[in-house]
Amino acid sequence: MTKTDQVVAGSAVEEVEVRGHIIDSLLLPKILDRVLQMGGQFEIKKCEIGTRRVDPSHAVIAIRASSPERLREIIGDLLQHGAVPVHTEDARTVAADLPGCFPDGFYSTTNERTEVRIAGRWVEVADQEMDCGIVVDPAAGTARCVAMADVEVGMPIVVGYAGVRVMPSQRARGETVFGFMSSEVSSEKPKAIRQAAVADAIRETREAGKKVLLVGGPAIVHTGSAGHVARLIREGWIHVLFAGNALATHDIEQALYGTSLGVSLSRGEPIEHGHEHHLRAINTIRRLGGIKAAVERGVLRSGIMYECIRHGVEVVLAGSVRDDGPLPEVISDMLAAQAAMRRAIRGVGFALCIATTLHSIATGNLLPAWVKMACVDINPATITKLNDRGSFQTIGIVTDVEPFLRELAEDLCGS
Amino acid sequence: MTKTDQVVAGSAVEEVEVRGHIIDSLLLPKILDRVLQMGGQFEIKKCEIGTRRVDPSHAVIAIRASSPERLREIIGDLLQHGAVPVHTEDARTVAADLPGCFPDGFYSTTNERTEVRIAGRWVEVADQEMDCGIVVDPAAGTARCVAMADVEVGMPIVVGYAGVRVMPSQRARGETVFGFMSSEVSSEKPKAIRQAAVADAIRETREAGKKVLLVGGPAIVHTGSAGHVARLIREGWIHVLFAGNALATHDIEQALYGTSLGVSLSRGEPIEHGHEHHLRAINTIRRLGGIKAAVERGVLRSGIMYECIRHGVEVVLAGSVRDDGPLPEVISDMLAAQAAMRRAIRGVGFALCIATTLHSIATGNLLPAWVKMACVDINPATITKLNDRGSFQTIGIVTDVEPFLRELAEDLCGS
Amino acid sequence: MTKTDQVVAGSAVEEVEVRGHIIDSLLLPKILDRVLQMGGQFEIKKCEIGTRRVDPSHAVIAIRASSPERLREIIGDLLQHGAVPVHTEDARTVAADLPGCFPDGFYSTTNERTEVRIAGRWVEVADQEMDCGIVVDPAAGTARCVAMADVEVGMPIVVGYAGVRVMPSQRARGETVFGFMSSEVSSEKPKAIRQAAVADAIRETREAGKKVLLVGGPAIVHTGSAGHVARLIREGWIHVLFAGNALATHDIEQALYGTSLGVSLSRGEPIEHGHEHHLRAINTIRRLGGIKAAVERGVLRSGIMYECIRHGVEVVLAGSVRDDGPLPEVISDMLAAQAAMRRAIRGVGFALCIATTLHSIATGNLLPAWVKMACVDINPATITKLNDRGSFQTIGIVTDVEPFLRELAEDLCGS
Amino acid sequence: MTKTDQVVAGSAVEEVEVRGHIIDSLLLPKILDRVLQMGGQFEIKKCEIGTRRVDPSHAVIAIRASSPERLREIIGDLLQHGAVPVHTEDARTVAADLPGCFPDGFYSTTNERTEVRIAGRWVEVADQEMDCGIVVDPAAGTARCVAMADVEVGMPIVVGYAGVRVMPSQRARGETVFGFMSSEVSSEKPKAIRQAAVADAIRETREAGKKVLLVGGPAIVHTGSAGHVARLIREGWIHVLFAGNALATHDIEQALYGTSLGVSLSRGEPIEHGHEHHLRAINTIRRLGGIKAAVERGVLRSGIMYECIRHGVEVVLAGSVRDDGPLPEVISDMLAAQAAMRRAIRGVGFALCIATTLHSIATGNLLPAWVKMACVDINPATITKLNDRGSFQTIGIVTDVEPFLRELAEDLCGS
Repeated sequence: MTKTDQVVAGSAVEEVEVRGHIIDSLLLPKILDRVLQMGGQFEIKKCEIGTRRVDPSHAVIAIRASSPERLREIIGDLLQHGAVPVHTEDARTVAADLPGCFPDGFYSTTNERTEVRIAGRWVEVADQEMDCGIVVDPAAGTARCVAMADVEVGMPIVVGYAGVRVMPSQRARGETVFGFMSSEVSSEKPKAIRQAAVADAIRETREAGKKVLLVGGPAIVHTGSAGHVARLIREGWIHVLFAGNALATHDIEQALYGTSLGVSLSRGEPIEHGHEHHLRAINTIRRLGGIKAAVERGVLRSGIMYECIRHGVEVVLAGSVRDDGPLPEVISDMLAAQAAMRRAIRGVGFALCIATTLHSIATGNLLPAWVKMACVDINPATITKLNDRGSFQTIGIVTDVEPFLRELAEDLCGS
Repeated sequence: MTKTDQVVAGSAVEEVEVRGHIIDSLLLPKILDRVLQMGGQFEIKKCEIGTRRVDPSHAVIAIRASSPERLREIIGDLLQHGAVPVHTEDARTVAADLPGCFPDGFYSTTNERTEVRIAGRWVEVADQEMDCGIVVDPAAGTARCVAMADVEVGMPIVVGYAGVRVMPSQRARGETVFGFMSSEVSSEKPKAIRQAAVADAIRETREAGKKVLLVGGPAIVHTGSAGHVARLIREGWIHVLFAGNALATHDIEQALYGTSLGVSLSRGEPIEHGHEHHLRAINTIRRLGGIKAAVERGVLRSGIMYECIRHGVEVVLAGSVRDDGPLPEVISDMLAAQAAMRRAIRGVGFALCIATTLHSIATGNLLPAWVKMACVDINPATITKLNDRGSFQTIGIVTDVEPFLRELAEDLCGS
Repeated sequence: MTKTDQVVAGSAVEEVEVRGHIIDSLLLPKILDRVLQMGGQFEIKKCEIGTRRVDPSHAVIAIRASSPERLREIIGDLLQHGAVPVHTEDARTVAADLPGCFPDGFYSTTNERTEVRIAGRWVEVADQEMDCGIVVDPAAGTARCVAMADVEVGMPIVVGYAGVRVMPSQRARGETVFGFMSSEVSSEKPKAIRQAAVADAIRETREAGKKVLLVGGPAIVHTGSAGHVARLIREGWIHVLFAGNALATHDIEQALYGTSLGVSLSRGEPIEHGHEHHLRAINTIRRLGGIKAAVERGVLRSGIMYECIRHGVEVVLAGSVRDDGPLPEVISDMLAAQAAMRRAIRGVGFALCIATTLHSIATGNLLPAWVKMACVDINPATITKLNDRGSFQTIGIVTDVEPFLRELAEDLCGS
Repeated sequence: MTKTDQVVAGSAVEEVEVRGHIIDSLLLPKILDRVLQMGGQFEIKKCEIGTRRVDPSHAVIAIRASSPERLREIIGDLLQHGAVPVHTEDARTVAADLPGCFPDGFYSTTNERTEVRIAGRWVEVADQEMDCGIVVDPAAGTARCVAMADVEVGMPIVVGYAGVRVMPSQRARGETVFGFMSSEVSSEKPKAIRQAAVADAIRETREAGKKVLLVGGPAIVHTGSAGHVARLIREGWIHVLFAGNALATHDIEQALYGTSLGVSLSRGEPIEHGHEHHLRAINTIRRLGGIKAAVERGVLRSGIMYECIRHGVEVVLAGSVRDDGPLPEVISDMLAAQAAMRRAIRGVGFALCIATTLHSIATGNLLPAWVKMACVDINPATITKLNDRGSFQTIGIVTDVEPFLRELAEDLCGS
């Protein structure tokens, strides 16, 4: 392996091995994944796969990193996923120097079954508990987990990763692979990064000459975000819009009356006759013959629908059984609406779905798997639903619509 | 009432009356509320209250507005809450001029039982349905609801509010007043206004020489918002901090390692050994003797805790049973923690609670009702819980923590 | 008032008074409400309403209860809402006999501004905090809140309600009445009672010769509840069904293949080819010419749709843009679907909406306010949305669909 | 492999192959998983793993099933995950016989890139869309997706799985394995099965001589479920209880007053003085010297705490900063509480967590990975949080607490 394009001068290498149902139980993919995530490289030196479920497998993998320190970090991490260095040594300990504190570099436990090597023998750690240290009794040849607050001065505490090995739980018969996974729908994730990823995807899509599709629900208007979307359209970032009667109605209601479902967007409080405004907005547009006619006649002079018409955005408004009116451009027949959507998605390279379960699922049904979708909703259940229905290319972002769109507009259009 | 400071020249007045269980069923408070909300004034001319539950009440109220147009709007709105003008006329109709459209100024229905006056007689509207118009058959002396799409040219459609009256449902025996109310926990509300209200409350509190209390959960750090809070502290907007071991730990973890619970805040992905970082952060601080010592020794040089110590913010870190470590400043005894919080809330004029149910409820338990709290959480259930536990002075804001805090910092500190 | 049908022998009476903006700030309705809730009766002896917003009002109310004990409880409760007995006395205290404990009958504080009467003078209680007791210093003529754990032996603690008065916060200018209210969407409520209320409503509706409408989403089938609904239909409790393509498809998928969206309902795990089954189910029904034809030909032999056809339930299946197929009976044109729903709701006396936002809102749009709806969903957001859209007659039940329907079926059909 | 215990008479075998980054991209584990899930067996005949990330891999797998029909189903499923039969043939088509319907046995598409073999050549399918059929133009040698409603009589539609191959999207560089997975936190899953799994786990734990740990929040009492838990304890199914002051207080409040946080559990409505009851309950128990003393003196005669004391259940009540009182048995020092929990989990074989985030996370922190936890909560966010904090052994059940516990009690104790 002296001559590969991957090897850089000064790199460090160490071999680890894994045993068990390493493919079936995802051990091997997980380990390879971690190596790449941590910036290392791998080479599979040996991979004997058990032919049947009961047969164990065995793999030896060479791990390479840019520095010995980096390599040590990677090996330390792999340890916790069940990989063991091929050449092992005894666990190292350092005596605790302060009460209630570990020495620097202490080994931090997981909740998986763990063994440490003491005088050449592998010994199971007692009282296994996550986020503890390991204290060794060299005389008795035993080891146990100890919580930070319980550390006493002089206790021999394991430091570093040498001489420690972890046995990850094997999944039980009948369990599927997919019970183990970490969640994708938490709201406790850094949001700024995902917003930037959406902006990048939109830029790349436009540069590649593909179309950007926005699929939007009325919460865009209710949350005061119509201006951000209008700006994105005006500056050429949106090329196709899928929505329903509600988005268009409340957008027009806001343009005509300054309210959305009767809530004043500048005052944030329900206002008088509020619930009538959306109906009066629909009636006004119907009397004029449609949204396009209302723009041409100068009645509709701002908002999402206005910008769509001014900038040639392809719009499909699909009806639903809860619609009032509806607006003349809304397609009331569902087969006709699907056909219009099928035509409009040709050439779409990226779909951004905002706060609409119905239209997002409808769009996910039509798009091929290689067109990415990003789905933004404050309710994690919406994203869970989309994923469960097979739209696996979806990136879910659990966040508030208004700040997301404001930043997206600032990112793409300048602030 | 000829000479009050409330009366303006050119104002318009009209009297309405209400009948039924007008206090008990909230009709009267609702009507007075609407008048004020819509910018009008009222004078109760007569108010006969039934002495027992079975006895009906009767009130006559003079409504005053700045212009006849405004007055008409208010009367139109009150109509839908059961008030009826003292002097009534027949309903006015206009023949529909376009198919599928109402004439301008059409009366827009609610789903409450409605009557129209035809030739001096009050007639119940058939097929009652919200968001429709009313078509009258003058010959038969009948009226019914008609959907917009079903309007045919020539149909006589009711316009304006004259000659229409609404009978709001009386609540059934045993129902409480509070089953009628609109929700406070929707995420579909304009957010910018509420954020501005919080900024104003903080400004007013500081100007009044009172203290601003921040009650925060670790999601402040996980969502990448620690910098916003640090800035607010640095610029003197926060004077007391209530939190737990987790907020302080992850803040320090981020200052020392750039991660929060092992998630890189600049990359947004879990990183190697991530879950260890928080434990190493705690151990480091314990080895130094505490957060204050870590700042003094120059080990801790950024973040929320750093700024608190540099700017003399009063901090109470209350422990919990899920804590690792904990940090030396964390108060492990709950009675001691409550006592410390009691001392620290003296002089607090406003409390901002961010993404923590436990500490928000604990704070709500201690604050008197006249100290306002604003509670920000992406999960509506948290705010519902706070309200249900009796902290009625809470303003709930269902939104994402990071953009909320970013904007708050920009609003108060400049962008 | 000696001779009313409401007065029972041995009843007790006491008069309380309220001052302030008692109508506008909901004090009076709240107090009347509490009296009735607690089983008492009231008689309004005097009610002077301020004519303008700035004018204070004043009411005197006689409270009557079945026993002096009951009356004392009611008066104690009203106290906390700002009512004060007309004839007051000094606050009574008892010396604490055990450390960390209040004497029996201690006055339990709210977080509202409170005063106690000491030697004929009303004194404000210091350190106001909820869920505390009040300790009096008779010498100094002062009083303050004390937490249970801080009670020392000998402290004079206020007991009973006499000599205590509470000043509820007046709402600030511009706030609406509806910011004060307790939540309707909590999941932390006793569920059994609400389920029983739905069962009663269904029984009463059938007895009154009215129709019961079920509005259902596909989660009925996904959660394994189709059998419960089938049973309700078979035994004559459901007369109209509103749903979409999804409910019917997954119900038929289950009848034909035993899966719902590819999840085996007896095994709870996704099964092979699962996602195809719903498409094959639709195709099978289309090939036969419809659901009715499939029942007649003996292909469809169980499930919700089967029972509907066998028992003459009126079904309206309204399409949506996300539909596959759709089934032949699904109405693809939205105006036609609304028209069919309008026809079918005639004679409906109660609507039960299960796990569908779209169809529930569509139904809420059509029903008059006096037809009660109960809306069952595990997601509080659905119920919040329905309420915000003006369907105030809705009873929201945040619970799991399957157990709710199982119990409803057992309640109505026997277990 | 002619003689293994896995081979059954009459079994059928076929070989498939997979190419690409089959370990790294999870193709191979997924395929092996599906085979087992569908009741088949596999034997890896050949597995050449690329040594570096850029090197492709290749595997040949023999699939065995109990019947040719079953084998066909399995092969059909694997196809959609990227496996291709080693011996291929042309795609078979059948002419559509009815408009808007596919022929029986039609190939149902996914949204992944798909090819069909026409006259020996693999041809990419145009207009890729999920839940469609494939129509072939044999003359032009092309194929495209067609929606069911668009099928015309005579169109040649692909049937069966032969001659079809699918290219699942390869994940992009930098994406982690765990972006692909299906959700674990949906509320749209059959619940009965999971409840049964919990009952089984409890039975097995008791039979194995291990202890069952219940970790519970106050919603157990608020939702009216205390009786179910009391029954489980009485009949010996619960051996350790971890909870806080709130669960114990509201349980005792209910036993003494029939309310929980002031909500009458038999009437479902807030009652008079409700919020005081929990404080009076605490005071009563403190005056008696503790829960145990209250049971011995005959004051506390029902509920969860009563049964715990009567049946020797080991109870750890850990305090929190929001506690009122607290009850004498509550451990106010968090380090002492953790130490008590550590002692009590020895011998625990199964942990059932109900409606408490705080105590569930605290317990998850202490338990080794091989002790299973089931976590029941109506809020998916709670389960997401637990999983994200590393308690991977958790089975999450998003459901309503009351029916879950009622059924569990009926399942274990008889109905």
